[in-house]
Amino acid sequence: MIPRYSRPQMADIWSPETRFKIWFEIEAHAASIMAELGIVPKEAAEVIWAKGRDAKFDVERIDAIEREVKHDVIAFLTHLSEIVGPEARFVHQGMTSSDVLDTCLAVQLVRAADLLIADVDHLLAVLERRAFEHKLTPTVGRSHGIHAEPTTFGIKLAIAYAEFQRCRSRLVDARAEIATCAISGAVGTFAHIDPRVEEYVAEKMGLTPETVSTQVIPRDRHAMFFATLGVVASCVERLATEVRHLQRTEVLEAEEYFSEAQKGSSAMPHKRNPVLTENLTGLARMVRGYVTPALENVALWHERDISHSSVERMIGPDSTVTLDFALARLAGVMDKLVVHSDNMQKNMDKLGGLIHSQRVLLALTQKGASREDSYRLVQRNAMRVWRGEGDFRTFLLEDAEVRKFLSEDDINEKFDLGYHFKHADTIFRRVFGRA
Amino acid sequence: MIPRYSRPQMADIWSPETRFKIWFEIEAHAASIMAELGIVPKEAAEVIWAKGRDAKFDVERIDAIEREVKHDVIAFLTHLSEIVGPEARFVHQGMTSSDVLDTCLAVQLVRAADLLIADVDHLLAVLERRAFEHKLTPTVGRSHGIHAEPTTFGIKLAIAYAEFQRCRSRLVDARAEIATCAISGAVGTFAHIDPRVEEYVAEKMGLTPETVSTQVIPRDRHAMFFATLGVVASCVERLATEVRHLQRTEVLEAEEYFSEAQKGSSAMPHKRNPVLTENLTGLARMVRGYVTPALENVALWHERDISHSSVERMIGPDSTVTLDFALARLAGVMDKLVVHSDNMQKNMDKLGGLIHSQRVLLALTQKGASREDSYRLVQRNAMRVWRGEGDFRTFLLEDAEVRKFLSEDDINEKFDLGYHFKHADTIFRRVFGRA
Amino acid sequence: MIPRYSRPQMADIWSPETRFKIWFEIEAHAASIMAELGIVPKEAAEVIWAKGRDAKFDVERIDAIEREVKHDVIAFLTHLSEIVGPEARFVHQGMTSSDVLDTCLAVQLVRAADLLIADVDHLLAVLERRAFEHKLTPTVGRSHGIHAEPTTFGIKLAIAYAEFQRCRSRLVDARAEIATCAISGAVGTFAHIDPRVEEYVAEKMGLTPETVSTQVIPRDRHAMFFATLGVVASCVERLATEVRHLQRTEVLEAEEYFSEAQKGSSAMPHKRNPVLTENLTGLARMVRGYVTPALENVALWHERDISHSSVERMIGPDSTVTLDFALARLAGVMDKLVVHSDNMQKNMDKLGGLIHSQRVLLALTQKGASREDSYRLVQRNAMRVWRGEGDFRTFLLEDAEVRKFLSEDDINEKFDLGYHFKHADTIFRRVFGRA
Amino acid sequence: MIPRYSRPQMADIWSPETRFKIWFEIEAHAASIMAELGIVPKEAAEVIWAKGRDAKFDVERIDAIEREVKHDVIAFLTHLSEIVGPEARFVHQGMTSSDVLDTCLAVQLVRAADLLIADVDHLLAVLERRAFEHKLTPTVGRSHGIHAEPTTFGIKLAIAYAEFQRCRSRLVDARAEIATCAISGAVGTFAHIDPRVEEYVAEKMGLTPETVSTQVIPRDRHAMFFATLGVVASCVERLATEVRHLQRTEVLEAEEYFSEAQKGSSAMPHKRNPVLTENLTGLARMVRGYVTPALENVALWHERDISHSSVERMIGPDSTVTLDFALARLAGVMDKLVVHSDNMQKNMDKLGGLIHSQRVLLALTQKGASREDSYRLVQRNAMRVWRGEGDFRTFLLEDAEVRKFLSEDDINEKFDLGYHFKHADTIFRRVFGRA
Repeated sequence: MIPRYSRPQMADIWSPETRFKIWFEIEAHAASIMAELGIVPKEAAEVIWAKGRDAKFDVERIDAIEREVKHDVIAFLTHLSEIVGPEARFVHQGMTSSDVLDTCLAVQLVRAADLLIADVDHLLAVLERRAFEHKLTPTVGRSHGIHAEPTTFGIKLAIAYAEFQRCRSRLVDARAEIATCAISGAVGTFAHIDPRVEEYVAEKMGLTPETVSTQVIPRDRHAMFFATLGVVASCVERLATEVRHLQRTEVLEAEEYFSEAQKGSSAMPHKRNPVLTENLTGLARMVRGYVTPALENVALWHERDISHSSVERMIGPDSTVTLDFALARLAGVMDKLVVHSDNMQKNMDKLGGLIHSQRVLLALTQKGASREDSYRLVQRNAMRVWRGEGDFRTFLLEDAEVRKFLSEDDINEKFDLGYHFKHADTIFRRVFGRA
Repeated sequence: MIPRYSRPQMADIWSPETRFKIWFEIEAHAASIMAELGIVPKEAAEVIWAKGRDAKFDVERIDAIEREVKHDVIAFLTHLSEIVGPEARFVHQGMTSSDVLDTCLAVQLVRAADLLIADVDHLLAVLERRAFEHKLTPTVGRSHGIHAEPTTFGIKLAIAYAEFQRCRSRLVDARAEIATCAISGAVGTFAHIDPRVEEYVAEKMGLTPETVSTQVIPRDRHAMFFATLGVVASCVERLATEVRHLQRTEVLEAEEYFSEAQKGSSAMPHKRNPVLTENLTGLARMVRGYVTPALENVALWHERDISHSSVERMIGPDSTVTLDFALARLAGVMDKLVVHSDNMQKNMDKLGGLIHSQRVLLALTQKGASREDSYRLVQRNAMRVWRGEGDFRTFLLEDAEVRKFLSEDDINEKFDLGYHFKHADTIFRRVFGRA
Repeated sequence: MIPRYSRPQMADIWSPETRFKIWFEIEAHAASIMAELGIVPKEAAEVIWAKGRDAKFDVERIDAIEREVKHDVIAFLTHLSEIVGPEARFVHQGMTSSDVLDTCLAVQLVRAADLLIADVDHLLAVLERRAFEHKLTPTVGRSHGIHAEPTTFGIKLAIAYAEFQRCRSRLVDARAEIATCAISGAVGTFAHIDPRVEEYVAEKMGLTPETVSTQVIPRDRHAMFFATLGVVASCVERLATEVRHLQRTEVLEAEEYFSEAQKGSSAMPHKRNPVLTENLTGLARMVRGYVTPALENVALWHERDISHSSVERMIGPDSTVTLDFALARLAGVMDKLVVHSDNMQKNMDKLGGLIHSQRVLLALTQKGASREDSYRLVQRNAMRVWRGEGDFRTFLLEDAEVRKFLSEDDINEKFDLGYHFKHADTIFRRVFGRA
Repeated sequence: MIPRYSRPQMADIWSPETRFKIWFEIEAHAASIMAELGIVPKEAAEVIWAKGRDAKFDVERIDAIEREVKHDVIAFLTHLSEIVGPEARFVHQGMTSSDVLDTCLAVQLVRAADLLIADVDHLLAVLERRAFEHKLTPTVGRSHGIHAEPTTFGIKLAIAYAEFQRCRSRLVDARAEIATCAISGAVGTFAHIDPRVEEYVAEKMGLTPETVSTQVIPRDRHAMFFATLGVVASCVERLATEVRHLQRTEVLEAEEYFSEAQKGSSAMPHKRNPVLTENLTGLARMVRGYVTPALENVALWHERDISHSSVERMIGPDSTVTLDFALARLAGVMDKLVVHSDNMQKNMDKLGGLIHSQRVLLALTQKGASREDSYRLVQRNAMRVWRGEGDFRTFLLEDAEVRKFLSEDDINEKFDLGYHFKHADTIFRRVFGRA
């Protein structure tokens, strides 16, 4: 997480101010229910809320205390007692730091997940609009970077839409994974704390109680969360890579928007580079890179060790802030993407109809040629085109062996583009529920 | 995947024989529905099934053809036409290799997922049995490897149970991710193939039709699948690590079963080592290691490139076979785990009651001492115990400042073990639905 | 490691037969020096060599023993004693299994490194030949996939050559990292074994004695080895990616060799796909994937645990066999690469001289225009070319503001290709030591 | 990189101020040599140095310009021209942004490497001092967490020393990998820039000229650099894990220093946790996590794309700052490590001499028992000890079969600790060059 690749709303989730505010709420809600259960005095809970609710926690003061006691939650509680006064001794009753820390992390990750889901929703809206705009814009489909058969640019975008729809659903699952609250004490036995405290605080903080915790919420949940972010980031990379390919000088079927004052290169004034999508490729690498540390965090020792903590202090913000930025940037790129449909047509025509080779192959087999012979006949004419000797359709018409099976009309009919788009509506209905 | 860490049922899913059989079924089902739709002759479909259904595909013959044509599906189809005869030309009509390959991979991964789910079910059954067996076996809970507070060995196992229950649910999700069938032709447009073929084959093969494919099923699905396996493997590592810790010479609270004829070391005949759980730790590293290649597979170029293929030829078997082996081994370890409850008690008693320090702290605050003072009072007596100066309870009883707040009875009452287990049933009901 | 991506010489290093042979040699050499030192009888050492030197160790028999004793080295020693007879009791005196296992792994990794270095040497020879062949073949240099400035195809290959020269040197370093022998006993103290045994066996096996071992050779060595392989694999990916780009239909500046009988697609007979380099991209992902498990292997517990073992049983062969295959395949691709220099020229001409924009920019600044103004003048003409409005040089000649600084001759002179190649020899001399 | 885990000297390397200063130096040195070569006016170079040398570059101003031109180097050059005036047009002549950016990154990484090497040197000094202090402090060696044979705590530290000595040498290699300067223009051809500029600037900036660059310094260099950091981090984790194990309550052979005012837990005042070494374990995960993105950066497209840039903006600081912090923290931990040699002895005695089982085994074989019989005899007595039935030596003395080979004196003599330390000096001489 660096400012260059951060957006404020996501970054704020990870600020010390936000963290201390969540810590306070957890402690104060716990005090409320403990008061209700007769564990602490009612007035104590009231004073805690009254003095703490709008308090501005002094980050530097807390840091100073921590330098001495070497424990962040104790530092916070000490500072809190400076604010709340003697009633502060009823704060944190029977709780352990992790009750606060892990529940706070859950709240932060839930908020982060909500932003990411909103990011994906925005991206989906953009993709849907552009997909319908280009539902029937012909373009060549490519496998291995080589022309395969015709498709439409809208179908390409529908594919991206379906991919991010899956990502949305994965993020919803990932959110559920980490949306748990643990207030179960030192080793998860509720020895000093009533399980009803956990239930109450969970509900107040928008979480569900953890089934069973040790001292901490089990880290397989977080591993699943960050792994999911790695998958989403990889989908960002896929679409970004598509744009990068389409903008290549020789292809130039689509381009990132290039603003008036923009400069592509300090040295070469003619440059317009797909720098945003290249950047997204790099950011995807980072979000993926955080997956392994998160997986390594799972095997904590016994009821917990604290090795996961430094990892999460870094990948918590790094992973969510970077992915948030990436999703927003991708939506911007797709929103303003300049589509050169003329070049799409030009490129598709480049090979003189080679992209129809399968139709000819199928026609031959339908007319009685064996699959092997049909393949051989089509391939030998296609290879001449690759060698630059001329036009595919002409070669076929002149090939006596081909003509034993196919008439001139048969052959010509195979070069019809519309044939390939007849199921565009089918596909759109599958993806968008409408065509 | 190496024989040493493979079990036959999972390995068989990945044999060439299985693969070719699935390929045949996909092609033959496609022929059936095409015959129904009037695209190929009914008799052709019948001949294909009749001659292919029980055919033994000749792996070496197919390999030989592939060495020539450099394309595995074409090699298979060529061999199939040797078996089926002229009707073979109606096989693969309008389909592309990926229709076969990707649908086959889906079938294989679904079968693998089913085995893994069954593995987890077996492990869960073992964990449940042992958890109830030790529901009230006292043992010390440890954070940071340091004694924290009492818990029970059954609660430890309940925690593992809940973790693998989550893993089960993740595997079910992962199975759904990859259980799709794509028969949509060269670039996913259904240009040469009726979408009903896809629907029919999907149903016959136990899959659902892919919403929209390019030439291939999108690889974010597989990425999610293998990432999930990485999470499950990390949970295997966590429990394995727990056993390794418990078997340490100084701890020795539990031990892997050591058979009569077993030898622990070639040099030191006294050795009994937790080699199975150490092995599981290593296997978990491998399954995790396969996650990143799977994530890197997502960003294929345009409608597909084939870079994912070599990766999947390796991690398909490697990841599923290794995890299957690991889950089965872990179930075996836990099933036969030798539990030394006497040592658990002995270790818990080692620090003369230090593990009750929090109860004393809480009692002090309840009796009016400030949180900070209470902490200081308890800590100063605890530190004397660490220095080996004597017994915690005695120090407390002798500490005049402590005694200002707590009577002898107050203090003695804090050293009761039962206090810590009062919610064992609550926890068991949460985890197992019964106590 | 799967047969599809294996070459026999590397795979053989990892066969059980090779392993047992190396184990025997280590044990027998140790016996020899112990005999010399008077620790075991001279005749015992002689019998061991006499009976074991040409013995064929029975892999299945050893496996059967291991199933009972659950220890591979003990199983081997038991089998060895069946071959050697009573003198076998002088084998393995004061040694521990790891002395054998780790020294054996060192021998295997050294042999693997030697093959990999030879692979790189072969690749370097191919690259050098092709680089000189195309030293002055003009082609466009591309940044961001966008035309930048002219270069030569030979320079592109020289860059690859320099990269693999670095890889060669890294492999030599990596070889040195793991070329150590440890025969130091149960915890590395030489309690039961004379350090001279280690020195003698090291020398006989082509290794150097490990400075200090625990029970095992420290795994930071192996981590460095496999990390290096990951870097080399990434270099393979870079060159493979270059070829994939050059073969794109719209670019088609180079092509993987496509054999007579080859088929590019089961459905589309016109296809010629860069499948070998795409395959290399996938293989690179695998070799990279093995790096993290190797890094996780470093932090073994105390004097060793055995978690690294399962990892190395897999990545030892997987990583070296896959990289060996990849390097050989890459050399083959580059050796037979079809270079379309006509298309290189055609592509370079595509933008009507835009690639000379920097020269014009520099000329303007040299003639007194500010850097900012110069940039603006060149950019505004360049952007017209991107919009398809015409020819760059013509626009410049017509631009009155430009002409205030540059004459017609000045401008024309900037479009000379030769200008860009004047340092081709400099570069070749730096890379190859000759031009 | 977060403040919590940063040290100022390393963090400063990555500040914008440092970066702009280095950029200026590169540009200004380039201007100097160009002036010398007659490419730009001598006075221009002088003015550039005069006005820029002590300039404070305005980070916010540069950011503002970048927001408009979307190019960081252009933004800097624009700001520089505001400082330098009209002579600024002679800055950056024939150079491309990457010449500046990549050379700057090289300078930053070199400085970072120098700090890391100094960190390792400090750690080595600490380890050496502590190793000699405990050269003959007996402690048990453990394999698999199980008592193996005696060693000394000094030997354990010598092992760590040797490991970090290797790390030092790897860091020196890694530094050399990235210590290159590229000033070769838009595609590395030196078309607009004399190779002597590169040589001059390289020398001035403490670098060597890159053999051949594209537009950028090839990223295999950086991959190797960050991979090396991952290896070093894994070594940090190994030693940290050792300390964590030694501090476990049941072991307690060593402890992190616990300061007077420190609090181990908010809930349990008795706690003293190895939190620093647990923290190091987490930090190691992070530094390892950055390796894969660095490896993925290698395969840039053609003469470069910019996907590596976002990755390096993050892992450049993140990886070096985190490792610097970790190395310093580890040195601190080892420096102040509290060693409980009494507990070492107590633990070693725990099993009643079982750790001498190998000596007995060897003695039996020396006296004529077969290896298999000897093993069986020792193992059966050892297993009784594990079952808690009594003392190993007593059992041996009472075992008639054992006594057929060994007298009472023979047996007693095998329980001598000194036997195991006879090569401590050998080991120390190997590691430290002195004993």
